[in-house]
Amino acid sequence: MAYSTEPSFLNEEGGIMGVSDCSVFPAVFQDVSLMVIFGFAYFLAFLHRYGFSSIGFNLLLAALGVQWAVIVDGFLFHFSAGKIRINLQSILTAIMSITAVLISTGAILGKANLMQLIWMAMIEVTVFTVNRWLAVNLLQIESHVSVMHVHLFGAYFGLMVSWTLYHSSLSRKAEKERSRPISDMFAVLGTLFLWVFWPSFNSVLIPEEDKKWTAVYNTYFVMATSTIAAFSFSMATSKNGKLSMAHIQNATLAGGVALAFSASNIQQPWIAMVLGLAAGTISVLGMAYLQKHLDPALQIHDTCGVLYTFGLPSLLGGIIHVILILTNHSKIVQILNADLVSIYFLGLILSCKLWKTPPVTKYFDDQVYWEFPHLAVGF
Amino acid sequence: MAYSTEPSFLNEEGGIMGVSDCSVFPAVFQDVSLMVIFGFAYFLAFLHRYGFSSIGFNLLLAALGVQWAVIVDGFLFHFSAGKIRINLQSILTAIMSITAVLISTGAILGKANLMQLIWMAMIEVTVFTVNRWLAVNLLQIESHVSVMHVHLFGAYFGLMVSWTLYHSSLSRKAEKERSRPISDMFAVLGTLFLWVFWPSFNSVLIPEEDKKWTAVYNTYFVMATSTIAAFSFSMATSKNGKLSMAHIQNATLAGGVALAFSASNIQQPWIAMVLGLAAGTISVLGMAYLQKHLDPALQIHDTCGVLYTFGLPSLLGGIIHVILILTNHSKIVQILNADLVSIYFLGLILSCKLWKTPPVTKYFDDQVYWEFPHLAVGF
Amino acid sequence: MAYSTEPSFLNEEGGIMGVSDCSVFPAVFQDVSLMVIFGFAYFLAFLHRYGFSSIGFNLLLAALGVQWAVIVDGFLFHFSAGKIRINLQSILTAIMSITAVLISTGAILGKANLMQLIWMAMIEVTVFTVNRWLAVNLLQIESHVSVMHVHLFGAYFGLMVSWTLYHSSLSRKAEKERSRPISDMFAVLGTLFLWVFWPSFNSVLIPEEDKKWTAVYNTYFVMATSTIAAFSFSMATSKNGKLSMAHIQNATLAGGVALAFSASNIQQPWIAMVLGLAAGTISVLGMAYLQKHLDPALQIHDTCGVLYTFGLPSLLGGIIHVILILTNHSKIVQILNADLVSIYFLGLILSCKLWKTPPVTKYFDDQVYWEFPHLAVGF
Repeated sequence: MAYSTEPSFLNEEGGIMGVSDCSVFPAVFQDVSLMVIFGFAYFLAFLHRYGFSSIGFNLLLAALGVQWAVIVDGFLFHFSAGKIRINLQSILTAIMSITAVLISTGAILGKANLMQLIWMAMIEVTVFTVNRWLAVNLLQIESHVSVMHVHLFGAYFGLMVSWTLYHSSLSRKAEKERSRPISDMFAVLGTLFLWVFWPSFNSVLIPEEDKKWTAVYNTYFVMATSTIAAFSFSMATSKNGKLSMAHIQNATLAGGVALAFSASNIQQPWIAMVLGLAAGTISVLGMAYLQKHLDPALQIHDTCGVLYTFGLPSLLGGIIHVILILTNHSKIVQILNADLVSIYFLGLILSCKLWKTPPVTKYFDDQVYWEFPHLAVGF
Repeated sequence: MAYSTEPSFLNEEGGIMGVSDCSVFPAVFQDVSLMVIFGFAYFLAFLHRYGFSSIGFNLLLAALGVQWAVIVDGFLFHFSAGKIRINLQSILTAIMSITAVLISTGAILGKANLMQLIWMAMIEVTVFTVNRWLAVNLLQIESHVSVMHVHLFGAYFGLMVSWTLYHSSLSRKAEKERSRPISDMFAVLGTLFLWVFWPSFNSVLIPEEDKKWTAVYNTYFVMATSTIAAFSFSMATSKNGKLSMAHIQNATLAGGVALAFSASNIQQPWIAMVLGLAAGTISVLGMAYLQKHLDPALQIHDTCGVLYTFGLPSLLGGIIHVILILTNHSKIVQILNADLVSIYFLGLILSCKLWKTPPVTKYFDDQVYWEFPHLAVGF
Repeated sequence: MAYSTEPSFLNEEGGIMGVSDCSVFPAVFQDVSLMVIFGFAYFLAFLHRYGFSSIGFNLLLAALGVQWAVIVDGFLFHFSAGKIRINLQSILTAIMSITAVLISTGAILGKANLMQLIWMAMIEVTVFTVNRWLAVNLLQIESHVSVMHVHLFGAYFGLMVSWTLYHSSLSRKAEKERSRPISDMFAVLGTLFLWVFWPSFNSVLIPEEDKKWTAVYNTYFVMATSTIAAFSFSMATSKNGKLSMAHIQNATLAGGVALAFSASNIQQPWIAMVLGLAAGTISVLGMAYLQKHLDPALQIHDTCGVLYTFGLPSLLGGIIHVILILTNHSKIVQILNADLVSIYFLGLILSCKLWKTPPVTKYFDDQVYWEFPHLAVGF
């Protein structure tokens, strides 16, 4: 195990990074690291009695998992002359692989002990990396695309583990399983950081400079529209036209998840924007209508709703990716353009509550716009 | 609407970005995005019952507004052959234009409903972009300077809207309109992020590499001195020599606002430092003495004090910018140098409270140094 | 005092930055600034009644101290023709020098008034910079290495000041000297930011591109292993196998501190990893067993435990640095490899508590895994 002698990482094996200018990467390295160490930690800290564990265990799993991922990735992709060569690409891939573990953790948050989480992390990283090796070497999938099924893998792996830990008493939501306004304020901190740095996540491993930028722009637009869908449908699905913080925390990220596979292939911003609307919509509708019925039926208990933030949107993204490869883009664009406009308007019209001016006594008060299942308002 | 085919953005129209090395930009793109999505959100989250709305609405307005700004900016600046070309410059300009909306939101925080905010955002972005187009094409102002009146525009646009929403009962400060220690802890989080990334904001659109760095250095120094002014005058203006968290949250940023126009033109750090002291001082004095009398007189109610954080400092910055263009720098510097030293010492001498050592029973206690209008101390 | 005319900073004096490509630095400049202005502020905000002061004073000391450090550093290193030349290197060095002050502040947190802190900052920055000048000019130490004793200097300077402020009543821990879950949530925010950006801190001043990357990788691994050691030994040292948030907040950073001197010299990841384990272990063991006895004996009161986060780990780092220079690396590696494996396993076996599956009634509850000396659980 040694550091690669090349200053940057023009790797021969996977061909991921053909970029000669390494100067772009230090910042992006930190962006992705910040998402994993900080973003996911606070994103998961919404349970009012489980904040320390959400943040602390996230840090430990990331620290352990990255080392393990570097070793497994090194043996499969960067092994030569009896040594693993470590370079920026292998560390970046390791950090991104860990995302799978952190997503899975969301599904079993609060139910598994630390040792179970550590075992899950080790196994999950190994399986994910072997999967990537198969994809690159047998299916000839580009290496950077192979990393991008991390959301899909993490979500369904977590749900599977959640299924093994299922206990019937979990179907009644415990008081400890709720958030409070103050813990939501911490959780939304994580959401916003994930939101801002998602363009880095979707673009960092793409070798060509212009494709990298296309991925950045597309991700930015897809995040923007999934945010709009999250707000519109969160209001539309509630009884009294109020917003749910849980929807906002989760569905605003669905666009970035859905775009992961095709971030650099989409040449028309409209396509990214429609994908974001669809992903945000699916995510909110899933949380609002599906979760209540699906979870007991499948005997799973998904604490953080990873199926709706990561599972369904990445499934959608995969399907769209295949469609985009198989068909002519420009036709789809025209059809989707019409959809786009109508969905936008639908959302805004449905949210009629928005139009009512609050009385002066209701100024400076979240209760006008937000649902508070936890009773306590303010902090 | 399509992505520009050039890898970077050597644009012919506005001439903003003549930089051939694009590697500097991804990080700065994220810096500005972080300020808009995260920094402003938490900066506005100081009301203890309005945290969700401050953060959530900020995210929605940014997501909607950036798309609208790209379209409006595209039609005016980047329209050719029936298509809008999207590049890094246009997205960056869009993100920065949104700052105007977020500043305006501060003035009417808690009083307007979401639909009113959305309409305001649409109209404000349109007017701001048309203004920029007129400035660039009729007044021959450099494009990157034209974006920099965003603080000025945002503050006075917000105050105008606040005037239309005025209601006499607002002159009595409602309990819900106060902060609590815990909501201040979240708000100061936003302040610190805005503080750290302000050098990126003031420099990102400047095309020449050396001027860009000058802008970064100047902004750093201007932030540092406006922070010192904020602390000194916050203590000087309170009855008992204590600090006010509201002053610190707002006035520490006044320097960056005031420098916006002339960030790359100032060659002597001293000038930036004096400007920062002046901006911080004006901001605190305005909040301490002017707000109580001016707001009812003008029939405005400025929830976040944007007049004093953004309005007056950017007015000062505009005046200084004109003076610097018209006069000989070196003479001013010598005069200001003397002022600088005296203002520094004035602030420190006035803050005599600082010199008293707290008794051991007052160790570990904010109450020695900070005013708590909200009664509750600690969290 | 004037800005250097060179676009980047190929300085002749100290020879620190021979890098021709300046594009790598803007982001790293912001990283280090973020650590100082935001990271340390929240890292020190763990006292539940002293949050405003921790954050506010940190900002003021950084703002004042950076200006003073630029002036002192300028006179000693960048003075020519009657002028101080300011460039990126001098500002970066100034920001990093301030870290010494912020660490010292941790030792006397809550006990010194603002004016005492300002005087300490001025004196400490001056002494530190003179020290650096002596190291570079008399001892021929590389300039970037000379900055790296900032942790060592800051910790012991702070402890010395703490000794002068000692009062016997401080040996009984006051109620106000405790954290609460909510203030710990803010403090761990600071910890995570310091964690993520430490690779920037340890690498930013290194002139050679490939050594810079080696420093980034090594720092990442050293942080990862000191995190593992922090968790393992935090559980091992508590009565009931629970974690202590104070240990996690502090000891996870010990690795980065210990590596500071030799970040770019270590060619084998294993060495960095072992160093991280040792640093994290020393940090936790010091806090758990040494602090109670050592502090009264030495008549110091170290509010934040800077001796264990910064003092001992940087001492360890200095010793290892000398050993690495004097001896053959490869032999050490083989010995340490064996140690590494055994320490890992020791930690995991000791933490047998980890293996117990919590009952369903203890789901979603921090109390299963964390010690709460403050009684209140959740927030």
